[in-house]
Amino acid sequence: MIQQISIKTGTRGLHEITDELSAGLNEACRASGIDAGLCTVFIPHTSASLLIQENADPSCRRDLERWLHRLVPENDPMYTHTQEGPDDMPSHIKSMLTATTVSVPFVDGRLALGTWQGIFLWEHRTGVERRRLFIHIGA
Amino acid sequence: MIQQISIKTGTRGLHEITDELSAGLNEACRASGIDAGLCTVFIPHTSASLLIQENADPSCRRDLERWLHRLVPENDPMYTHTQEGPDDMPSHIKSMLTATTVSVPFVDGRLALGTWQGIFLWEHRTGVERRRLFIHIGA
Amino acid sequence: MIQQISIKTGTRGLHEITDELSAGLNEACRASGIDAGLCTVFIPHTSASLLIQENADPSCRRDLERWLHRLVPENDPMYTHTQEGPDDMPSHIKSMLTATTVSVPFVDGRLALGTWQGIFLWEHRTGVERRRLFIHIGA
Repeated sequence: MIQQISIKTGTRGLHEITDELSAGLNEACRASGIDAGLCTVFIPHTSASLLIQENADPSCRRDLERWLHRLVPENDPMYTHTQEGPDDMPSHIKSMLTATTVSVPFVDGRLALGTWQGIFLWEHRTGVERRRLFIHIGA
Repeated sequence: MIQQISIKTGTRGLHEITDELSAGLNEACRASGIDAGLCTVFIPHTSASLLIQENADPSCRRDLERWLHRLVPENDPMYTHTQEGPDDMPSHIKSMLTATTVSVPFVDGRLALGTWQGIFLWEHRTGVERRRLFIHIGA
Repeated sequence: MIQQISIKTGTRGLHEITDELSAGLNEACRASGIDAGLCTVFIPHTSASLLIQENADPSCRRDLERWLHRLVPENDPMYTHTQEGPDDMPSHIKSMLTATTVSVPFVDGRLALGTWQGIFLWEHRTGVERRRLFIHIGA
């Protein structure tokens, strides 16, 4: 049970994808008859990543973005991998510090996320229009 | 095969949960007849996280806690998400840098952890009494 | 479907293991008749970790290593867990900031990695010859 979806990003930052993933899960549950199990999301990119974090207050999301951007600034004189622009190497490092895969259990066809949790695709680059995701559903 | 358990935290820091997870796994193996597969733990919170790390020498655990606390201090003037107290935004960042899900294979009904590995629930907040966890067992 | 493999490391740094994992996956697919599902890699060590990142340009890998080494230097006066040498506590912290488990979907017996993605075992210690890995294959 593997689906592939495409998410519009366009701008740098956290893009919530909980609704898209829930829709994909619903479809997979209907097609398969499975209604409880594990949903795993994998991002096949090295300059964008995944995060499960608070989706209620936008100030939390903004602080996460600003904090990571301060820890991993552009134009660090240490970088030698600079051919693809000043936002490229920071994007790889930010991806390294967050997640390439997240797994969330589901019960009765619904993700068992906490009250304040959302799933985010974190676009670390500027000027990238879309990112692909794989969703695996297992019993 | 999904279980939900509750762990007492109370104080900030790394709380080992290997025994609780092993007990849950044993029960699931007995009930299902499965004795090898993958055990996935998911934490439905955004200010506590999961970590697999050394459980032998308490000095290692203490250094991990102090290092992360120095990297992500309270009262950073950058934070704007401050309504829930000085330990709230650092807790979200610490969760971001560690794990929301961990998956460990099991063989003969036992987690295939290394000799020095334990599984920890990392409580990043002060004054939280309990945290929930979901455990998924798959063949 | 659990396999155990051993990887030669020897030197500190990122060691690509994509080929070894693909070979293990092929073998598991042939033996089981499964050709799509989720491949999970688990490292049963606390001073080495896993990373999925760019495998095309070696300068990217080198910058990742140097950046993390600068963030987590040896001989930090904060460390109290120093009995096993100056590279020990930094290794635990570096492992904490990266991954102990990675899960990658596979389709037609092949890992659904992105064009530029490779899977790496990150040896954080000097003088360790080999590391073990568990591979779990699920439908």
